[in-house]
Amino acid sequence: MKVKNCYFPLFITEANLQREKDHIDGFAAEVAWVTEGGKSKLEKKLAVRPTSETAMYSYYSKKIRSHRDLPLKLNQWNNVVRWEFKHPMPFIRSREFLWQEGHTAHLTEPEASKEVREILDHYAAIYEELLAVPVVKGQKTVNEQFPGAHYTTTVEGFVPSVGRGIQAATSHCLGQHFAKMFDITVEDPTQEVKEGEKRNKLHVWQNSWGFTTRSIGVMILIHGDDKGLVIPPRVADVQVVIVPVGINAKTTDADREKLYDEVDSLRRQLEDVDVRVECDFREGYSPGYKFNDWEMKGVPLRLEFGPKDSANGVVTTSRRDEAFSKEKGTIPVTDLATQVPALLEQIQSDMYTRASEEYASHRKVIRNWSEFVPTLNAKNVIIVPHCTNGDCEDEIKKDSSGHQEGAEVDARAPSMGAKSLCIPDAQPEAIAEGTKCINPKCGKEAKMWVMFGRSY
Amino acid sequence: MKVKNCYFPLFITEANLQREKDHIDGFAAEVAWVTEGGKSKLEKKLAVRPTSETAMYSYYSKKIRSHRDLPLKLNQWNNVVRWEFKHPMPFIRSREFLWQEGHTAHLTEPEASKEVREILDHYAAIYEELLAVPVVKGQKTVNEQFPGAHYTTTVEGFVPSVGRGIQAATSHCLGQHFAKMFDITVEDPTQEVKEGEKRNKLHVWQNSWGFTTRSIGVMILIHGDDKGLVIPPRVADVQVVIVPVGINAKTTDADREKLYDEVDSLRRQLEDVDVRVECDFREGYSPGYKFNDWEMKGVPLRLEFGPKDSANGVVTTSRRDEAFSKEKGTIPVTDLATQVPALLEQIQSDMYTRASEEYASHRKVIRNWSEFVPTLNAKNVIIVPHCTNGDCEDEIKKDSSGHQEGAEVDARAPSMGAKSLCIPDAQPEAIAEGTKCINPKCGKEAKMWVMFGRSY
Repeated sequence: MKVKNCYFPLFITEANLQREKDHIDGFAAEVAWVTEGGKSKLEKKLAVRPTSETAMYSYYSKKIRSHRDLPLKLNQWNNVVRWEFKHPMPFIRSREFLWQEGHTAHLTEPEASKEVREILDHYAAIYEELLAVPVVKGQKTVNEQFPGAHYTTTVEGFVPSVGRGIQAATSHCLGQHFAKMFDITVEDPTQEVKEGEKRNKLHVWQNSWGFTTRSIGVMILIHGDDKGLVIPPRVADVQVVIVPVGINAKTTDADREKLYDEVDSLRRQLEDVDVRVECDFREGYSPGYKFNDWEMKGVPLRLEFGPKDSANGVVTTSRRDEAFSKEKGTIPVTDLATQVPALLEQIQSDMYTRASEEYASHRKVIRNWSEFVPTLNAKNVIIVPHCTNGDCEDEIKKDSSGHQEGAEVDARAPSMGAKSLCIPDAQPEAIAEGTKCINPKCGKEAKMWVMFGRSY
Repeated sequence: MKVKNCYFPLFITEANLQREKDHIDGFAAEVAWVTEGGKSKLEKKLAVRPTSETAMYSYYSKKIRSHRDLPLKLNQWNNVVRWEFKHPMPFIRSREFLWQEGHTAHLTEPEASKEVREILDHYAAIYEELLAVPVVKGQKTVNEQFPGAHYTTTVEGFVPSVGRGIQAATSHCLGQHFAKMFDITVEDPTQEVKEGEKRNKLHVWQNSWGFTTRSIGVMILIHGDDKGLVIPPRVADVQVVIVPVGINAKTTDADREKLYDEVDSLRRQLEDVDVRVECDFREGYSPGYKFNDWEMKGVPLRLEFGPKDSANGVVTTSRRDEAFSKEKGTIPVTDLATQVPALLEQIQSDMYTRASEEYASHRKVIRNWSEFVPTLNAKNVIIVPHCTNGDCEDEIKKDSSGHQEGAEVDARAPSMGAKSLCIPDAQPEAIAEGTKCINPKCGKEAKMWVMFGRSY
């Protein structure tokens, strides 16, 4: 995609941050301010970046001087701070997080919109292919879009244990709002002009898009279990741990050494085919302790190897992923280099399939308000005909909060109402003419199928 | 080296920052403080990390519970802020910079000291082999070491245009100071104990080491010239630019297209052998404009290709590095894939050799105080017998400032005195018995050859 990496400062002046009205309105409550440097009070306080649109676009205004400078595609890997006051949760809602933020400028709206979608596809692919997390692609309603955006596209995940949706990553078309505030213009290259005539100025079309460490939190919420983490093989730092077993008080030093040498040779076989493997030779810990320890850390595949395995020429396998964690298998030592990578890919694929089926079975298409709250309370997200109007969304949020008479209450969020998660790209069907918005108090025509849910 | 990557927060509590006295004394004047979050005043202000020793070591204290957890080697890639008030300069002395900071804990002093030196060798190698920047390895005097360190090792560069030394990267042995403040201990594994007896607690030995974006500034200062940047090929984002030439008003569209296709095929040949190459097809700009533009950006090698070159089956070469920038050469099109990579390596090596010879010729060994300031003023760094005493260093700094009678003054830093840059590992010779410190006011025995200089 020809995106170049760059870096812009952590601190943003208050004046710059305030240049786009919706943007500052959206972030004002979440900004951390530096007011002192060393022992002196600063003349003007500085914002710790909550996102870098306003930090970067003064530069874009100088850098972009002709349509030949377009598209300009810059990305930075950095940290941002959003001073959230409610419910911080590691990786999910934290005051500092890490991300990449891409900022691009284009000549035309279609070009910008095309990129927004390309990025969204990449984000979906990272979730689905690397993190084994199924997502629903769609567009945010106006209520939920990024402050200052023209529109926001999103990938939305689902946390089965609590039946809530979770925003996974977003890609925004910013339109021309920031270009107008920061005066980012080029001369219209398509305009026919006579000698000496000036071309019209066009404001560029901009996008911004980000993928954050929240993705790690989403992965943990979706795959983790009561024993701890479950990491999909493709992203696991350690994919395989080999634990020597069957050593006891009667084992001679020579026998132990022989076994350890064999374990080490298993390791090398796997390393030779690029499997990320560790051996657990810690002394003074039982195999059971080690098993628990590596299970907590989420290592996808454990290999056990003891004198009996050695005699049989096999390695015992134990998968971490829940559905298979009780099954043990064996692999002949001679086939390790082919069967372990294949098994890791199988685990990856099984993890995705299982999560995907679970998500699909909890996306309910609902047509009547009477089913809305009960379906929500049964730990589902719901897809409903909706007017896409912001006030109506607020009303639904209020009316679907846990205080409904007779409704079963989600113990962990008894008062939380449903908000719109996205307008899914994959609409269940065309909205039939005359279909009303699901909110009985609304009365307007439904425009789209909108996915609502309680949300992390 | 089995270092794992990690991430710790940007903000450090004031209490944590103050736990090691020398450390906070060293940084207090440079800390940026966050005092407001959203619209609320924070109860306790937070430091934006100037370095992460104190942020990380509470964790180390919990994580390290046995000698089996040692060595613990963590590294983070991040940004830090030091609120410098004087002379900010991009990449060299800026309020925010990027770096990696490694933090390690070891059982013994020799183990820690071994690593400090291994890291220093890596840092020297990055400068010499990638950035083509010669450095002198050594140890900082107590006056100049890191706040809270046991000792600091350093690689020191040299900026010929102003004759000043420049600190390039540092690797610190922190000793046990932080371990004592943060209670990072293990039980002594070597102690003989009887049943039921408790082992003694040992404080771990710690190191920290960092390599920063300052390295880019050092590279620019050493290789740049009046036309702009000069980037060594191994680290250049664009190593080769191909500029089509010889196109004029008489060139037919077909001829231009043919030439552009040929340029594009040259590009592909180079890409196939992993050369990072760009073609400059911009219209409306003369070749001269393009040459200047890419020279300013420091692209190491320019290839020119026009109808004449095409007819002769050659490409014209033009090197960016100063010593050779006036020479042009040619490479047969058929040899591009071998000769261009070879030429890039030649440029890399020539850049290093030239800088290295220049540095060597400006490191003067001086035995008499009378030569100290004149040699300094002649744009050298100087290696002198010294007592390694801090007060004496302060005196030398004062006495070597530009206000010396009769001394030629460095116009860009007329009042700057010389400070100790390092105690070079490569000592010119053993200090002969009875040798006095070079400072005539000092009168003490010299202990080491110390490199002094004006410094960036």
